[in-house]
Amino acid sequence: MSQHIGILVEAEPGPGILHQLTGVIARHGADITSVVIVEARRTYFEMDLEGDPDALIGDLSRLPIVHRVSQEKTFEAVFGKRIVIMGGGAQVGQVAIGAISEADRHNIRGEKISVDTIPLVGEQPLAEAVRTCARLPRVEALVLAGSLMGGDIERAVREVRAQGLLVVSLNMAGSVPAAADLVVSDPVQAGVMTVMAIANTAKFDINRLKNRNF
Amino acid sequence: MSQHIGILVEAEPGPGILHQLTGVIARHGADITSVVIVEARRTYFEMDLEGDPDALIGDLSRLPIVHRVSQEKTFEAVFGKRIVIMGGGAQVGQVAIGAISEADRHNIRGEKISVDTIPLVGEQPLAEAVRTCARLPRVEALVLAGSLMGGDIERAVREVRAQGLLVVSLNMAGSVPAAADLVVSDPVQAGVMTVMAIANTAKFDINRLKNRNF
Repeated sequence: MSQHIGILVEAEPGPGILHQLTGVIARHGADITSVVIVEARRTYFEMDLEGDPDALIGDLSRLPIVHRVSQEKTFEAVFGKRIVIMGGGAQVGQVAIGAISEADRHNIRGEKISVDTIPLVGEQPLAEAVRTCARLPRVEALVLAGSLMGGDIERAVREVRAQGLLVVSLNMAGSVPAAADLVVSDPVQAGVMTVMAIANTAKFDINRLKNRNF
Repeated sequence: MSQHIGILVEAEPGPGILHQLTGVIARHGADITSVVIVEARRTYFEMDLEGDPDALIGDLSRLPIVHRVSQEKTFEAVFGKRIVIMGGGAQVGQVAIGAISEADRHNIRGEKISVDTIPLVGEQPLAEAVRTCARLPRVEALVLAGSLMGGDIERAVREVRAQGLLVVSLNMAGSVPAAADLVVSDPVQAGVMTVMAIANTAKFDINRLKNRNF
């Protein structure tokens, strides 16, 4: 049975290092699920491994470029699922209040949900941020918190929904609400509902809602 | 002159893929600064590259395992610096309100600051989350928001400060405030000050403060 492990490697900096490290990992048949280059000298891997972590750690340590290798807790174990809230500062703050309070209640019961935010203004920066969310690890839902959003932001919302992200929109002017999975008027409730929708500890199932506007 | 670029690769899933992709990137002399395995079939790289991105994209595309390669906006360009707020839900929410409002004001003037939160309870989970922050990309500051924190959380705070993170603590019971760079009683002000401390658009310099308790 494979296990999911975290490995931190301290090594010489520079081009080609990742290629050498991943070569050792590939020879152990491990499937890398996440890589973080913390700084030029420290690289952190998460992987599914069938064999013995100590054998892999030993082989990595024997590379001449490597100074130190240690096993660490995985991000999934520490930070869990993420929701991202973006838009105008006033509304993002209120959605965050709801989401953080609700995440707290689920995390106490064993869930791991973190709440990330980015206050942003303008159609192009927001559309880019929406699209970028689909490339961030562990993101399950996105909340658009503002007063007017449309145009390319609407297209970005449809793209990331097609890639599996849940998108919640505040009730606002523009075409974004019509493109979202769920539209909520109260920002605090929008944050709460988004967390409920991704929490395994909640009874809320967005697919069973007849009304998607609140 | 080298440029910082983002490259998204769609390829066959499975062990060894990252080793093949990084081999091509190493041959182009690029220094990889960030990797995100979005899902098994989609891997996103950021790198500093001296040469022509199109030549690299062409060589990656010619690998038999690769289906599609595209150039994308970098995370740094979209999400920028991060601050992380962790602790009890009530206090984390209030610190977030301050931090998000202040980040909004700086982001309008050209900064890129995002505000991430995780509501968490218990000494061991919090100590782990503090230590894990030092392995997350783009994190510059950490706010500990609670009513009682000490023991292993204090040790974790000293470790991540030694690794270069700025740590702000609410005024609270336990030994964490004494280990922090800055102690603030009002949670909204704690969020605002943390953003000011990392914003290039702010005049605030924590090293010039005579008093570190507010």
